[in-house]
Amino acid sequence: MGATPPLSPLAPAAFPDLPSIGGVSFATTSAGVRYKGRTDVMLVTLAPGTAIAGAFTRSATRSAAVLDCQDKIGGDPSKGAAIIVNSGNANAFTGRLGTESVAAVTGAVAERLGVPVARVFSSSTGVIGEPLPHQRIIDSIDTLKGALSHDGIGDAARAIMTTDTFPKGASETVMINGQAVHIAGIAKGSGMIAPDMATMLVYIFTDAAIDQEILQSTVSALNRTTFNCITVDSDTSTSDTLLVAATGASGIRVTENNIGFMEGLRRVMLDLAHQVVRDGEGATKFVEISVSGAASDAEAHVHAKSIANSPLIKTAIAGEDPNWGRVVMAVGKSGARADRDTLSIRFGDMVVAKDGWVSPEYDEDRAAAYMKKQDIEIHVDLGLGGGTATVWTCDLTHGYIDINADYRS
Amino acid sequence: MGATPPLSPLAPAAFPDLPSIGGVSFATTSAGVRYKGRTDVMLVTLAPGTAIAGAFTRSATRSAAVLDCQDKIGGDPSKGAAIIVNSGNANAFTGRLGTESVAAVTGAVAERLGVPVARVFSSSTGVIGEPLPHQRIIDSIDTLKGALSHDGIGDAARAIMTTDTFPKGASETVMINGQAVHIAGIAKGSGMIAPDMATMLVYIFTDAAIDQEILQSTVSALNRTTFNCITVDSDTSTSDTLLVAATGASGIRVTENNIGFMEGLRRVMLDLAHQVVRDGEGATKFVEISVSGAASDAEAHVHAKSIANSPLIKTAIAGEDPNWGRVVMAVGKSGARADRDTLSIRFGDMVVAKDGWVSPEYDEDRAAAYMKKQDIEIHVDLGLGGGTATVWTCDLTHGYIDINADYRS
Repeated sequence: MGATPPLSPLAPAAFPDLPSIGGVSFATTSAGVRYKGRTDVMLVTLAPGTAIAGAFTRSATRSAAVLDCQDKIGGDPSKGAAIIVNSGNANAFTGRLGTESVAAVTGAVAERLGVPVARVFSSSTGVIGEPLPHQRIIDSIDTLKGALSHDGIGDAARAIMTTDTFPKGASETVMINGQAVHIAGIAKGSGMIAPDMATMLVYIFTDAAIDQEILQSTVSALNRTTFNCITVDSDTSTSDTLLVAATGASGIRVTENNIGFMEGLRRVMLDLAHQVVRDGEGATKFVEISVSGAASDAEAHVHAKSIANSPLIKTAIAGEDPNWGRVVMAVGKSGARADRDTLSIRFGDMVVAKDGWVSPEYDEDRAAAYMKKQDIEIHVDLGLGGGTATVWTCDLTHGYIDINADYRS
Repeated sequence: MGATPPLSPLAPAAFPDLPSIGGVSFATTSAGVRYKGRTDVMLVTLAPGTAIAGAFTRSATRSAAVLDCQDKIGGDPSKGAAIIVNSGNANAFTGRLGTESVAAVTGAVAERLGVPVARVFSSSTGVIGEPLPHQRIIDSIDTLKGALSHDGIGDAARAIMTTDTFPKGASETVMINGQAVHIAGIAKGSGMIAPDMATMLVYIFTDAAIDQEILQSTVSALNRTTFNCITVDSDTSTSDTLLVAATGASGIRVTENNIGFMEGLRRVMLDLAHQVVRDGEGATKFVEISVSGAASDAEAHVHAKSIANSPLIKTAIAGEDPNWGRVVMAVGKSGARADRDTLSIRFGDMVVAKDGWVSPEYDEDRAAAYMKKQDIEIHVDLGLGGGTATVWTCDLTHGYIDINADYRS
C-alpha cells in the first residue's frame, strides 16, 4: 500500500445520507490487521428473523471466507446473525490456514454475540497469500460489541475500503401498500478487482420482511444486470461478495415479484455498481455501453463486454478519440454473431457508423467534442434480432498503470 | 499515425539475412496511399505451380481483402500467382466500396502480370473505415512490375509496416533426403494482437514442392501453436492474414507429415510470432507463459490466455513485481478447471507457490531480482491432468497508453 491515490475525478460530491434500517447495527474499529491509523474491521449485527441472500465470485480460486459464506446462505433465520469484515488482508490463497482463520473469527463472533456460528458471515479484503492475523480481529470483538449503533453505516463504508478513493453508499425508500420500506447499502471496490488490493464487497440492508428464497432469487436476478455488468479491467477477484439482509423490522411483507421493491433494490445495487466503476483505478471517464439488435440478450452481453474490456477502446476513450473503428473490431472479435453490413454505432446521439460504413452524417469535430465529456455513451445495434444488454466501464489511463505497476511495499 | 514510436527495447539487433527463394520475386514502391516519404506497397510474384495456403482472422467484421483471400485459397496452381499488400489503409469496414477496391486492385494486377485474378491475393493494413484510394495502388503496378527482384524480401518487410518499430523476418534451411529446402518469411504487427491471429500480416515462402492440401493442413496445424498463441492486448484485428507459398523451385517434394519440413516451418512461424510480441506496443518485457497439469490442452490454453491477457498481471510485470497472487486470480477467473489446493506457480525456476499457498522456499528479494530480466517465464501447474499450453505476451506499460490514447491525426 503506497501513497493514497488522489480522489477519483468521477467521485460523487459527498457520501449520501443513508437511513438507519431497523434491526441492523454497525460498529467499526482499528484492529491493526495491516493498516495503521484507520479503521479496518466492521461488525454488523442483524435481528432474529433476518433473511440473508448472497452472490459471490465464481472464481475457481475463491477465498476461504467466500466458501464459508456460500455454505451458510439459506440457513435458519430465526436467531440473530452477524457480518464481520476486515480490510488489509484478503485471507485468499492461504491454504488450510485460511479456513482455520475463518472458523476462528466467525466462531469468536458467534460466542461473544450469542448467535449461531452458522449465521456469522465474514469477508476479508486486502493482500493475498499472507496468513490473516486473525487474533487481532478476535481481540477487537468486545470493543466492536460495545460500539454497536444503528447509525454507523457511513463509518462501516470507510472501514472496508482498500484502494478505494471514496466510500460508497446508496439508499432508496419504497412505498408498499402506502407504507415505507427502506433499503441502504455500502460497497468497496476500485479495480474490478485486484486480489492484492481491490475486491468488491457489497452489503445491503432492508427493513422489509421477505422470505429467504424470494430474497435470494431476487438478488440473483438483479445481480445479473447490475454488478455482473460492470468491469474496470476484466479481472475477477477471489473474494467478491454481495450480501443482502432483510430484517423485517418495518413489519411490511414483500411477496414474490413485488415490482416496487425489486426496482428499489435494483436502483441501490446499480448505484453502488456505478460507484465502483467511478472509483475504477485511474478512471477519468464513466462509460455506458449499450447493445441492441443482437441475436439474443446473452449475445448482446458478450458484445458489450468485448467492447468494455477492449484495451484499445479504453485507451481511445482516455485519449478522447472517437475511434469507432475499434468498436467494429471489438464486435468482430467477441465470438457472438454480427454482420458487418447491418452494424450501426452511436456515440451519444451521434450516428457514427451504419450499414457497414461510416455514417454520411458523421462529423469528426462534433464527435471529438463529445468525447471530452466525463460520461460517455456508446451504442451498438447489430441489426440482427431483439437482444439487448448494457454494461458500464471506465477508461484505461496512465493512472491505472501507476497504481498497478507499483511494486508492493 | 503521429510521431514514430522509438525502437522497441526487445527488437533484434538487425534484420536477418534471408535466402532468396526460387520462384519468388519482390518489388516495393511509394504509392502515397497514406504515408509520405516511405514505401507502402509490396508486390510478390510466384512461379506457375506454386501452392498457397492461408490462415485468417475469425473476426465477424473481417475486411474485404480477407474475405477475397479466403475465397481464393485452394484454387488451380498451374498458372502464376501474385500477392499485393498496401499499408496506410486497412480497407476495413468500408462497405460495398471495400469489395470494389479489392476487385479493382486484384483485377489490375492480374491484367498487368498476366496471371488469373483468382490467383491474386491482396491485403491492406492501416486505418479502418476510410475508403481505400485504390487508384494510387493501380497506378503503381507498372513501376512495381519493372522493379521485381529475387532479393527484395527485406524491402518488402519494411513496406508493410504500420506502427511496427522494426521489420520482421525469419528463415530456416531444412535438409530433405540430403537436399536443402529453404523457408523465408516476413511479418508485420505490433498492436491489436490476440490469439485468433494478431493484427498481423505474414507472408512465408518456400522452394519446397508440396501439394496445396498438405500445405494447408500443415499451416492450419502449426498456426494453432504459433500465431494463435501470442497476445499483446487481447484485441483481434479485422485483417489478420497468413499466406504460405510453396513454389517447388527446389525440385524437392515434401510429403505429408514430413517432420523436418514441419519443424522448419514451425520455427519460422514461431520466430515471426515472437517478433510481433517483441514489437508489442509499449512492450519492455517478453513473457512466456506455460501451463501444465490442466484437465486438457484446450483448458491449459484457456488458463494461459487468461494470464497473458490480464491487465493486472501485465502491469505487475511492467513494474517488475513478482505478484504471483494475480496469477492465482487469473487462473481462478479463466473458466477452465482449477483446484486452489493443487496449484503451483514458478517464475523462471523459482517455485513461488504450491499446494494452495506461498512456497516455503519463496524468497521475495530473489523473485524481485528475477523480474528485472527482459525475458520472463511464468509456469503454472494445475495438478489436475496432462494438459499443456504455452503462450507469449508482453507487459502493459505507459508506452501502450501513449500510443493508443493519442488522438488520430
